[in-house]
Amino acid sequence: MLGRLNHVALAVPDLAAAMAAYRDTLGARLSAPQALPEHGVTVVFVDVGNTKIELLEPLGEASPIAAFLEKNPSGGMHHVCYEVDDILAARDHLKQSGARVLGDGNPKIGAHGKPVLFLHPKDFFGTLVELEQA
Amino acid sequence: MLGRLNHVALAVPDLAAAMAAYRDTLGARLSAPQALPEHGVTVVFVDVGNTKIELLEPLGEASPIAAFLEKNPSGGMHHVCYEVDDILAARDHLKQSGARVLGDGNPKIGAHGKPVLFLHPKDFFGTLVELEQA
Repeated sequence: MLGRLNHVALAVPDLAAAMAAYRDTLGARLSAPQALPEHGVTVVFVDVGNTKIELLEPLGEASPIAAFLEKNPSGGMHHVCYEVDDILAARDHLKQSGARVLGDGNPKIGAHGKPVLFLHPKDFFGTLVELEQA
Repeated sequence: MLGRLNHVALAVPDLAAAMAAYRDTLGARLSAPQALPEHGVTVVFVDVGNTKIELLEPLGEASPIAAFLEKNPSGGMHHVCYEVDDILAARDHLKQSGARVLGDGNPKIGAHGKPVLFLHPKDFFGTLVELEQA
């Protein structure tokens, strides 16, 4: 079921400063910042060739990463996203296995325009797992 | 400078339970556990095709992930590892840029038998960054 790693999401309190660190200090290739108001973040993609690193800064009042940054004011590793071929089949298998799907259990359209689900971090040893239909 | 994502390391308090969750619940392909006493961990590799997820359980008295698991008893995302072509050139560039290299600043031989460095998470917005010479 579990396919390739689509991205690793890193929450940062200051996207401009994080862009400078990744571009100038680490020598990484970055996208321009993209505001995604419907997802409550501004994102910069770091292209590392085999996958993407996403630098996320909160956007708007109800950002899904605001609580994380309150607990981790410097920022930190927020979630990993794996690809699956069939998100409804994946969801059904996960629920049968006892894993908790966040929200109402139905896929939402994620930041890449594809259906996504998030799984409860307590079921995966403290790691927030996103699944995206490839 | 920054090359491909070599792995994402997830610290877990109970490797057998984590293996069951990744294999049975997420349907992932796992390696057998490998004890690496000189690195203070037992590791299981999760093959996701384009990169690796490493599940790390502490091994021995002075495990480098023990303090993390004291702060995060359920486990969590521990570090990301990027490949570089020349780790000494990378180290010199990082130091010139003001980034802090952990330890004495010299590469050590990492868990894959290659030279590695760790960078201070405060310089990268709460994310512990490992660099490995490819």
